[in-house]
Amino acid sequence: MHPAYTIGLDYGTNSVRALVVDVRSGEEIGTCVFEYPSGERGLLLDRSNPDLTRQNPRDYLDGLQASVKGALAMAGSRDGFDPAHVIGIGVDTTGSTPIPVDELGRPLAFQPRFRDDLNAYVWLWRDHTGHAEAAQITETARRLRPQYLAKCGGTYSAEWYWSKILHCLNVAPDVFDAAHTWVEHADWIPAVLTGTERPTALRRSVCAAGHKAMFSREWGGYPDAEFLAALDPRLVPLRDALPDRTYNVADTAGGLTEEWATRLGLRAGTPVAIGAFDAHLGAVGAGIGRGTLVKIIGTSTCDLMVSPLDADIADVPGLCGIVPESVLPGQFGMEAGQSAVGDIFNWFVEVVKPAGKGHRELTAEAERLRPGESGLLVLDWHNGNRTVLVDQRLTGLIVGLTLHTTPAEIYRALVEATAFGARVIMERYEEYADRVTRVVNCGGISASNRMVMQIYADVMGRPVEISRSPQTCALGAAIAGAVAAGSEDGGYADFGSAMEAMTGVQDVVFKPDPERRKTYDRLYALYRQMHDAFGVKGAGGDMYRVMKALLEIRDAARR
Amino acid sequence: MHPAYTIGLDYGTNSVRALVVDVRSGEEIGTCVFEYPSGERGLLLDRSNPDLTRQNPRDYLDGLQASVKGALAMAGSRDGFDPAHVIGIGVDTTGSTPIPVDELGRPLAFQPRFRDDLNAYVWLWRDHTGHAEAAQITETARRLRPQYLAKCGGTYSAEWYWSKILHCLNVAPDVFDAAHTWVEHADWIPAVLTGTERPTALRRSVCAAGHKAMFSREWGGYPDAEFLAALDPRLVPLRDALPDRTYNVADTAGGLTEEWATRLGLRAGTPVAIGAFDAHLGAVGAGIGRGTLVKIIGTSTCDLMVSPLDADIADVPGLCGIVPESVLPGQFGMEAGQSAVGDIFNWFVEVVKPAGKGHRELTAEAERLRPGESGLLVLDWHNGNRTVLVDQRLTGLIVGLTLHTTPAEIYRALVEATAFGARVIMERYEEYADRVTRVVNCGGISASNRMVMQIYADVMGRPVEISRSPQTCALGAAIAGAVAAGSEDGGYADFGSAMEAMTGVQDVVFKPDPERRKTYDRLYALYRQMHDAFGVKGAGGDMYRVMKALLEIRDAARR
Repeated sequence: MHPAYTIGLDYGTNSVRALVVDVRSGEEIGTCVFEYPSGERGLLLDRSNPDLTRQNPRDYLDGLQASVKGALAMAGSRDGFDPAHVIGIGVDTTGSTPIPVDELGRPLAFQPRFRDDLNAYVWLWRDHTGHAEAAQITETARRLRPQYLAKCGGTYSAEWYWSKILHCLNVAPDVFDAAHTWVEHADWIPAVLTGTERPTALRRSVCAAGHKAMFSREWGGYPDAEFLAALDPRLVPLRDALPDRTYNVADTAGGLTEEWATRLGLRAGTPVAIGAFDAHLGAVGAGIGRGTLVKIIGTSTCDLMVSPLDADIADVPGLCGIVPESVLPGQFGMEAGQSAVGDIFNWFVEVVKPAGKGHRELTAEAERLRPGESGLLVLDWHNGNRTVLVDQRLTGLIVGLTLHTTPAEIYRALVEATAFGARVIMERYEEYADRVTRVVNCGGISASNRMVMQIYADVMGRPVEISRSPQTCALGAAIAGAVAAGSEDGGYADFGSAMEAMTGVQDVVFKPDPERRKTYDRLYALYRQMHDAFGVKGAGGDMYRVMKALLEIRDAARR
Repeated sequence: MHPAYTIGLDYGTNSVRALVVDVRSGEEIGTCVFEYPSGERGLLLDRSNPDLTRQNPRDYLDGLQASVKGALAMAGSRDGFDPAHVIGIGVDTTGSTPIPVDELGRPLAFQPRFRDDLNAYVWLWRDHTGHAEAAQITETARRLRPQYLAKCGGTYSAEWYWSKILHCLNVAPDVFDAAHTWVEHADWIPAVLTGTERPTALRRSVCAAGHKAMFSREWGGYPDAEFLAALDPRLVPLRDALPDRTYNVADTAGGLTEEWATRLGLRAGTPVAIGAFDAHLGAVGAGIGRGTLVKIIGTSTCDLMVSPLDADIADVPGLCGIVPESVLPGQFGMEAGQSAVGDIFNWFVEVVKPAGKGHRELTAEAERLRPGESGLLVLDWHNGNRTVLVDQRLTGLIVGLTLHTTPAEIYRALVEATAFGARVIMERYEEYADRVTRVVNCGGISASNRMVMQIYADVMGRPVEISRSPQTCALGAAIAGAVAAGSEDGGYADFGSAMEAMTGVQDVVFKPDPERRKTYDRLYALYRQMHDAFGVKGAGGDMYRVMKALLEIRDAARR
């Protein structure tokens, strides 16, 4: 049998990575990262509106070609590698990252008349401009369709599909009117590669639709017209253009077009898997299974679990979603997340710049501190709270400062806060779904910062393992490519066998220390108290209104 | 009439300053600062106990000679200056800063057997080791002698005389037993200069005794033996050694001894005024009068007002004290304060070191921000809260952090928090005592940072003026020296005429801006909400216990 390779394409917040993987061994033999050239590291921002973050779809296409060519070139230095042996392609992206497109599926941003209108560009996941609309959707669903909310944690987020579309309708009706439909980034790339962008041909993923757009077979697909009309009647035609069915990552979007085959140097017709969100395919790349909590730790985190479709899973308040087959066929995919983790550490190092110290130096100093020794406690809400509060209008808090508080103490407290946030998510999973027996962390911080991993183990009280691949998301996409190829063409018949062959964890396991855990239990109780006081309406002596009021005053001052 | 000069000696936290002042004009013609050589900038610290701060009395004596000689040398460059024309000396110090002394009034720290025992040294004002004892004293007084508490704001502080002595008794009984009495720094220096250190000869100031040691003529002087016995019976002999009467700054401690006259190059017999705390004489140097709130802004602040003895002043909860004649003869002296102001700004610049920026650069950036624009709110409790909460077991808090929060935004929020703290104090004065019609600020920050002054004006809603002298405390001490000298010897008969001749304000007046004030009113309401939630027991959804619990965990972790 000839060697076989697949390509995983991983679209992140600032760049896209292509990864060439050996289908037999999971060995990663070629990779290339393309940094988005537009705006600030790929982000199109608006100084007067800190909630706004858009992207340029041109960056995605430029990056597609450049990263694949680069990864193939690197793989080409291996003896015996031949691009003709690439048997499948998988794609993951951030999300919910919807793109307004015309009737041919082309981004409105490519039209000259919208060149200067950021509303016609890609609405990146972390864009929070639709927070008022999110509240309206939550409120309307609570009244008319409580079942819609139950599957997405009880609150519809500003980061999600309908909040963004409704906000566009409110602030840029011309863009809204020009959009034939809105396509998730994760659906758009496979469609481009297979020539199926036209909305009538486009296959949408259950991952994006189920987690972010209130899609469920339980109520016949997308939210019904009556509900959308209650939000705004102009949404109804948009609903009519949406399909009734969606696909999971075991399905294919189609075969590679001649045009893209030529551009990339691959065979035309190469199967391209249905896309999914980065975290979901990251969980696949980390070898997710029942009882394993996979944490994809980057600028933010996604925390994923799976459970058999026949398991009796209750609706889980605060979770980003429970969606059949959103991670793996035949399993519920459950998604939670922290709105900022690496972003918080980076903010401290790159924006506050304490004593000019970098991550390494601060980590070395912070590692010498004992739990609780600093007297500090942080709420890790610098970018809001995704799980379990689902509220972007929250902010970071530090308490316990003295005249002696050092940068290393603050750094450690920031890390600990994200660990407390992780524990909140784990406990929510355990309360409503499944016991967590092990935690597998992925992403750069997991591999590079042992202190962070040990703190997570001590705070969460579970053994913490690290995914073997440093590129778990891209690896997961490559696995999807191997399943799309199928066993007859050198790939795999199902995800179970593909994951067994292609994934693994590192040898080191971080075990909880009982003494440190005892102190962290005390600190965690205080974290929970503050968390609920500032994050839950009606609790904690009206502390809840403080962060909201500060943001209102801020927004008024910036107008 | 020959020219006349007085010397003001101002003992601060890190150094002592001598100031030679022309008694006619108030002109400052010579000054010299002596930095305490012991420990860290004069502070004797204990890494394992962050509450502990002591000083070496030797530094006070070395600094006395060096600073006076230096100031006289500088004055000597003026035509016609003659040290023989120095007609009086005044002294101010920090407080409550008690010194354990033997039966001759000599500091125990000078005895070889106590050389290595920090408990035998000077207990600097900001030493908080006695916080448990402070709580015990408050509790006991509430039960047995509520009148004692009423005059010091309802809570007895860890920074004060009896808390420190009782803590010494508990942790270092050998030092306690060896101490014949405890003498405030402000009483000790005039006693040394006039040879009246022997406890039977020592004249104690009403300023220190009344504000910090529960002395009042209302109940016959110091706290009675029964009360002290309820704290600990071993305190009773100490009570018996204390005098029945005290003195105010219009009195003299005596005349300069031959020995010190020789050392300093002054005339023997030169009158030395009774000492007082730095802030109290600072208020004199700033020209305090009814309706004027004088803020001495340094590492911390003292906020002083006066009111005629025949005014009907209610007891003011949370104030550091209301003491007849503690500032001026014939007037109530009222003292409040913020535990840290400049210290907080310095912590940010010198410990956090954000982006390597100094005060000037951060101020320039922060000045361009609008009120509320950062979305930040700070509780300025990095060193506890002196007024109105009287609680050292509080800590600093920042809320409103985002991934975009800059050092300049934090810096401005720190400044604003101290302004909110200042407003809390002003409103407490107004509620219980007198309307504040103007604010006069003194101290280095007042003269050097216009942004800080404008924020204070905007937040407090009062015109803010700046004392003309950059050394208001030392000037106030020199004024006391001029009154001690008396009008016949070229000084003044009373403080009114002395202040009129020797004090003044700068031309610039910072006026509140109505627009900015409106935003600050909204922020201040949130500050008050957080202030009460975290600072007042039983309020704010049990937030009160958070800072306490963090400090308990910290202290346990450091043991």
